Amino acid sequence: MTPLLLALALAAADTPQPAEAHARANQAALVRELVEALSIPDVAADKVNIRRKAEFLRGRFVARGFTAEILETVGNPLVFAEMKAAGATRTLLLYAHYDGQPVDPKGWKQESPFKPILRNGKMDDGAAEIPGLGALTKYEDDWRIYARSASDDTSPIIAILAAIDAMKAAKTMPAWNLKVILDGEEEAGSPSLVPAISSYRNKLTADLMLILDGPIHPTLRPTLVFGARGNLTAEVTVYGPKMGLHSGHYGNWVPNPGMRLAQLLASMKGEDGRVKIAGYYDGITLSAEDRKALASVPDDEAGLIKLFSIGSVDKVGASLQEALQYPSLNVRGLSSSYVGALARTIIPDSATAAIDMRLVKETKGADIQAKFLKHVESQGFFVVQNRDATDEERLTHPKTARIDFRGETNAYRTDPSDPNAVKLTKALKDAFGVDPVRIRTSGGTVPIAPFIDALGFPAVSVPTVNFDNNQHGENENLRLGHFFRSVGILTAAMRLEP
Amino acid sequence: MTPLLLALALAAADTPQPAEAHARANQAALVRELVEALSIPDVAADKVNIRRKAEFLRGRFVARGFTAEILETVGNPLVFAEMKAAGATRTLLLYAHYDGQPVDPKGWKQESPFKPILRNGKMDDGAAEIPGLGALTKYEDDWRIYARSASDDTSPIIAILAAIDAMKAAKTMPAWNLKVILDGEEEAGSPSLVPAISSYRNKLTADLMLILDGPIHPTLRPTLVFGARGNLTAEVTVYGPKMGLHSGHYGNWVPNPGMRLAQLLASMKGEDGRVKIAGYYDGITLSAEDRKALASVPDDEAGLIKLFSIGSVDKVGASLQEALQYPSLNVRGLSSSYVGALARTIIPDSATAAIDMRLVKETKGADIQAKFLKHVESQGFFVVQNRDATDEERLTHPKTARIDFRGETNAYRTDPSDPNAVKLTKALKDAFGVDPVRIRTSGGTVPIAPFIDALGFPAVSVPTVNFDNNQHGENENLRLGHFFRSVGILTAAMRLEP
Repeated sequence: MTPLLLALALAAADTPQPAEAHARANQAALVRELVEALSIPDVAADKVNIRRKAEFLRGRFVARGFTAEILETVGNPLVFAEMKAAGATRTLLLYAHYDGQPVDPKGWKQESPFKPILRNGKMDDGAAEIPGLGALTKYEDDWRIYARSASDDTSPIIAILAAIDAMKAAKTMPAWNLKVILDGEEEAGSPSLVPAISSYRNKLTADLMLILDGPIHPTLRPTLVFGARGNLTAEVTVYGPKMGLHSGHYGNWVPNPGMRLAQLLASMKGEDGRVKIAGYYDGITLSAEDRKALASVPDDEAGLIKLFSIGSVDKVGASLQEALQYPSLNVRGLSSSYVGALARTIIPDSATAAIDMRLVKETKGADIQAKFLKHVESQGFFVVQNRDATDEERLTHPKTARIDFRGETNAYRTDPSDPNAVKLTKALKDAFGVDPVRIRTSGGTVPIAPFIDALGFPAVSVPTVNFDNNQHGENENLRLGHFFRSVGILTAAMRLEP
Repeated sequence: MTPLLLALALAAADTPQPAEAHARANQAALVRELVEALSIPDVAADKVNIRRKAEFLRGRFVARGFTAEILETVGNPLVFAEMKAAGATRTLLLYAHYDGQPVDPKGWKQESPFKPILRNGKMDDGAAEIPGLGALTKYEDDWRIYARSASDDTSPIIAILAAIDAMKAAKTMPAWNLKVILDGEEEAGSPSLVPAISSYRNKLTADLMLILDGPIHPTLRPTLVFGARGNLTAEVTVYGPKMGLHSGHYGNWVPNPGMRLAQLLASMKGEDGRVKIAGYYDGITLSAEDRKALASVPDDEAGLIKLFSIGSVDKVGASLQEALQYPSLNVRGLSSSYVGALARTIIPDSATAAIDMRLVKETKGADIQAKFLKHVESQGFFVVQNRDATDEERLTHPKTARIDFRGETNAYRTDPSDPNAVKLTKALKDAFGVDPVRIRTSGGTVPIAPFIDALGFPAVSVPTVNFDNNQHGENENLRLGHFFRSVGILTAAMRLEP
């Protein structure tokens, strides 16, 4: 059974959550509202349209009784909306982003990424277009809307509105004050988010943040993500002779930079995939409870191994989930002269490795940089940073390398035993009758991490969209069954105990 | 003092060899004949012109009293010329090639690579063109002819003719029978040379072959080369996941092919540059005498180290010359996904290293292939050759690699103590009053090696052209002082004792 089929089986077995049922009952209007939002181009660089979208969304929150406003920043505006709950002492901040990834329309199998279309399934499986998107009264769960930001991350915003509608209809409003902040630059790295805090700290203060972004676990079980790894890239160039040299005339005498780079890289990792740089894993401990929680995530490791055609896995952790609790060291690229038809029998003048290191909460970027640097030096290299070595430096040191560190984003992680996180877990379990999938640390990096750090209160992601949504690629899509379900999930989350 | 300045100083100190003096005295006609030869396009693929050049050269040998003919092969014709010596019992075979490297005229600073021009020095040093090439009566030693095949390898052919002229004038003809064989496909790998032996074995039989190709030692001392390394390339691809994967989601769990390739490469060589593949150096021994001879080569290692800006050398041998007696293993290229601006945070689907291994006489290509393969397997890899691994193979083996071996050319080496080689050495020493530079094995690879092997008699290279001749590149050139001297060197070589 594929993950998606399994998910559908589980979904069918669940008791329909009342808010989800409300969303299904009102699907004509709900889908229409989503299509309206998706019809506004929302690439962060498109300043005119991105502001149009901000205004559109602000209006929709106002229509639901929120006070809502545009918060200006050094970059694109934030949309801020607020709804108080009578007698509430706690505040929930919902974060989502209203911008989408840049588009290359040539790769899209439709007129425009901003003219949403409906298909009766997954395009890759040959699903056909169904006319009338936004004007139909009934949509099947397996149907998909194809449009930029359909999944990432406009539908969660519309789902907040639908959840409010459902709660109003059922007279079951949250016992927490609600705040919503919508980021207009997430796909550009959220550069204005942290700077905005000083201007709007009061509005952004809360007791718990829910990040509404990303795909739900393939089993379709409600999913909570408590952290994300950070990132740091290092580009390492090992120098060879000043000019490419005839490998016959000088091979065995002039050192080869590709071999020296290989030796350097090999010194960084064992055969088991564990990093050998001293102190790389310092401070990371997993309790028996942590391990139990990690083991409870229903990953289909065997399925992934088959999908990827890999015959072994790195032994950093006992499972994929455990591996993600540690910083990684990934050779994302290698280059030296040429391979294949263009290869020439030379000793190249240099060899370069592009590396990315995913950070975890315990391993800060600055610390990993220092350890990485120290390791390279311990292998006998003289190191220059962010510039080329001079001829003199190359001549006077046995081995010379250049290192450029870039793109440092720290990790974040909210303690799953935080009281509000526990309440959130309980709210989802009560609503769906099943333990949510609890991801301690997701492997990827989110630009919101420094924002979470700076705000200083717990944050948990509540992802809802289909995992096969072509996020960041062409033909991004949203499966409507996931969308309807997301209304139930967000409703349950917002109704956590006070 | 640069090598060339040193060379000129030595040259000035030498007693002029009589044949060299004759060449200088007849330089107007000699240069004209060379220019005529260089004016015929001689790329091996240009079937019409290459045959024109063969006919032209045949005529020149006939004009000197040789019997000369065109020998047809499966490819371009060979030019064969013969001149008996009265009462001679021994035969000398002179080998040169009359084709030149392919050309890219855009890179040449003259109308055509086949319209030779004269410059009053080295173009890179700003030397100016001098009009009248071929019509002048006097040429300076430092002047250079710029044309394809000027150095590689037409001028040695003209120098044979000039040497015969000089010997005739001095009534000092060789005591050996002379045979000349001119290859028309050397720059294309000499594919027709070995097949031609079966048709023309009688004509090609001799007691000693002189290979007239390549640059003389920078000191300008007559140079003898007794062997050349062979070559074998291996392209090694290590497989990662079937598709590039998000390095955040899977880093630490899905193995990285770049790291595994680095570990594999690092297992092949020590920090000292010595190859660790079992048996790689088997059978190679250097006697005290060999080492002494190697140490006698006046390489300017310190000058090379400075020129190349390298801070250390591999420790395969005690010197550059000693290092060349061993097979090398050179990473000539590396590639995996991207580095630099295009780098993406993925676990790439594969990583490839292009390797070349220079062979020596003791290490045959087939044997090195087997040892290389065994080594890769000993590192835990399942290996497929000359095809991609299937998904099933990748899935069912912990590590999988593809290896493509190509371009195998064995090494050759004539024993420097061979009696005829000793006579050759003595002839040059007697003529020039200085020990020739004796290179036991040159580092590069010559396509003639299998021909030497198949013929089965000793072969020694007698290189004569300037080392800074842009051989194989654009703006190939010949320094005229070297050309005049080459007539003296070839005369002395041809007049070795019977």
